[in-house]
Amino acid sequence: MIKLNDNFQALPPTYLFAGVGARVAAFRESNPEVDIVRMDIGDVTQPVCAPAIEAMHAAVADMADASTFRGYGPEQGYPFLREAIARCDYQQRGIDIAADEIFIGDGAKSDIGNFPDILGRELNIAVTDPVYPVYVDSNVMDGHGGSLLPDGRWSGISYLPLSATNGFVPDFPATAPGVVYLCSPNNPTGTTLGRDALAAWVDYCRANGVLMLFDSAYEAYIRHADVPRSIYEIEGAREVAVEFRSFSKTAGFTGLRCGYTVVPRSVVGRYSDGSTTPLHGLWLRRQCTKFNGASYIVQRGAEALYSPRGRECTRRQTELYLGNASMLRNAIGQLGLTVAGGIDSPYVWFRAGAGIDSWQLFDRLLSAGVTSTPGSGFGPSGAGYVRLTGFNTPDNTRQAISRIRALLA
Amino acid sequence: MIKLNDNFQALPPTYLFAGVGARVAAFRESNPEVDIVRMDIGDVTQPVCAPAIEAMHAAVADMADASTFRGYGPEQGYPFLREAIARCDYQQRGIDIAADEIFIGDGAKSDIGNFPDILGRELNIAVTDPVYPVYVDSNVMDGHGGSLLPDGRWSGISYLPLSATNGFVPDFPATAPGVVYLCSPNNPTGTTLGRDALAAWVDYCRANGVLMLFDSAYEAYIRHADVPRSIYEIEGAREVAVEFRSFSKTAGFTGLRCGYTVVPRSVVGRYSDGSTTPLHGLWLRRQCTKFNGASYIVQRGAEALYSPRGRECTRRQTELYLGNASMLRNAIGQLGLTVAGGIDSPYVWFRAGAGIDSWQLFDRLLSAGVTSTPGSGFGPSGAGYVRLTGFNTPDNTRQAISRIRALLA
Repeated sequence: MIKLNDNFQALPPTYLFAGVGARVAAFRESNPEVDIVRMDIGDVTQPVCAPAIEAMHAAVADMADASTFRGYGPEQGYPFLREAIARCDYQQRGIDIAADEIFIGDGAKSDIGNFPDILGRELNIAVTDPVYPVYVDSNVMDGHGGSLLPDGRWSGISYLPLSATNGFVPDFPATAPGVVYLCSPNNPTGTTLGRDALAAWVDYCRANGVLMLFDSAYEAYIRHADVPRSIYEIEGAREVAVEFRSFSKTAGFTGLRCGYTVVPRSVVGRYSDGSTTPLHGLWLRRQCTKFNGASYIVQRGAEALYSPRGRECTRRQTELYLGNASMLRNAIGQLGLTVAGGIDSPYVWFRAGAGIDSWQLFDRLLSAGVTSTPGSGFGPSGAGYVRLTGFNTPDNTRQAISRIRALLA
Repeated sequence: MIKLNDNFQALPPTYLFAGVGARVAAFRESNPEVDIVRMDIGDVTQPVCAPAIEAMHAAVADMADASTFRGYGPEQGYPFLREAIARCDYQQRGIDIAADEIFIGDGAKSDIGNFPDILGRELNIAVTDPVYPVYVDSNVMDGHGGSLLPDGRWSGISYLPLSATNGFVPDFPATAPGVVYLCSPNNPTGTTLGRDALAAWVDYCRANGVLMLFDSAYEAYIRHADVPRSIYEIEGAREVAVEFRSFSKTAGFTGLRCGYTVVPRSVVGRYSDGSTTPLHGLWLRRQCTKFNGASYIVQRGAEALYSPRGRECTRRQTELYLGNASMLRNAIGQLGLTVAGGIDSPYVWFRAGAGIDSWQLFDRLLSAGVTSTPGSGFGPSGAGYVRLTGFNTPDNTRQAISRIRALLA
């Protein structure tokens, strides 16, 4: 009979978003008169920036004529986009990243999920707790999870708590892992890692031979100069870090599908026989074998984001979502509750008190017509918290705030 | 130090297309006056069908307005496309496949390369020889290759020769593998598997608990009723087969990126503890964790291919390439050479005689200004053969034929 990957058997179904959906649907059923405000959405709501729209219309037109038609593109992305990224996101900010170190993909989720393909088969990973579930689930599928513990964590994975106590900065694990996943600005906590914290982590990785997989999908939300937008702003990061980015939350590309992964040629790994080689070549080989490039049309759209108009539009969109997040953070802070995020980030993370767990807080908010995402769904250290997002409209965000005030004041 | 996947160390670089490119470049350098005709191209040259162009313009416009904007779509694809496929490619042809058994992806290469993620970690695979390299390389990366043999094959993989002797129909392997990859119409040989041959393979897979991964990326080229366009035309295939398809060669989507994978709910696998479950749920879990859906714009373009105008355009495009392939096949046959393919397929596969190896034939053709792909690059049984494609224009194809005639007559 056909043999299955046993690692899938241990993987529980993802209850979090399904659970939220089911409770919201039940509430809607019993309270049809309440106009629910969705503050749980992780998706953007503003349309795609105009310069990207224009570029995609032009790219569609290219496809209609044999003289401008584009067939298979390079698996690692078109030079026009790789060069725009290298210039605008790195070199103009004084960061040493070359165009050929950038791999265009169809979104950060694919690249983050697939990256362990090129790493040692016996892999110990460390993640923060709470954590974006893809880091954990993709490694469990690859056999790096060990066994599932009663609290929902995995025996083979190191969890680094993020809490108000440590200022949402993860401490180093007791034993050095092979890989650490860091995400700043963080999903779900909305907190960021400052220059000193990241420098300490880069030093740790260099000293211990750890690969850092750095998820900066939300870097476009950073406004404060002391929060690095790229891990490569930190000295030595070119030796130990791979960076994942996305146009999804930057410019409304969630439905278009485009992101990129930076693999500096200076990140070197070792085979079991002791020989060493840059990860760059392995990732190229992996992508050339199991991927055929992102859509030409979408790559043209992404390129247009680097024009002056594209950059202005991106700034305006992220400013709007940041404004929403900031309103949420301030309002919740004024209620005297523990709140994090909402600065340089579209996410706000808060709790209502020691006696109230995440689902209880979720239910109370829902009773007032406001949805949220229970923090416990992102890991045990999320217990008591919920996540709100800045992705709704400013009007709806204000509506949510007035309901939260009435409920929790 | 960072540990690498040892399976990549054993994987040789892909010399085939690079080798072709280098020889063509050297020839061009020494013979600047020769206007080379590219008959090695595996990419299409006709522009994207007009109905798909129109649908993509409309989809780009959807993205420009908040009221029609689409963010994250379902990882498994939009219902509008899944339903169109189920209806037109399956149900209208009397084949029992439901929309929710269809997973939209960004191309057959990704899905074929990633599918082993859900299968047992100790996997014995069987492939034909010659073979599309992705089947082999993706399994080698996953540790299913064993060691590399001097002839370029892998000790852990069963190779099923395709040759003029067996009519390019693979015999069953001596020992049943866990998975067999079949491709019809075949890349690179251009040959097809008839109803009887496929029925025998489905029976074999059912009797031996083998999973069939059936690549029908070229099904749109089939014109003869005795050649199945889908493996599900064969009784029992719903129990053992997964089918991969693509819009790339059907409608000029190579640069757009869209394909689909059919995983019938009736294909069941077994975990080590003996419990069983459909593969469908595992593939859904894999895709939801490591993929975020194909681009909305491209899915709208693919949907338009199922309109009457879209179907007519697809038929016209494949007819043009089929005409080229047919001209090539006939001309080479008239020279008295061993030729295969070119019927129900855009590929033609031929050899010039026992004393001439693939690279020698390649070089002779190149000296006449015609490129080809050496068959030995697809596996030992490709020795002596080269592959020509029908993807150039009819005029260029005629030009190539007159040069081949002058050279080999």
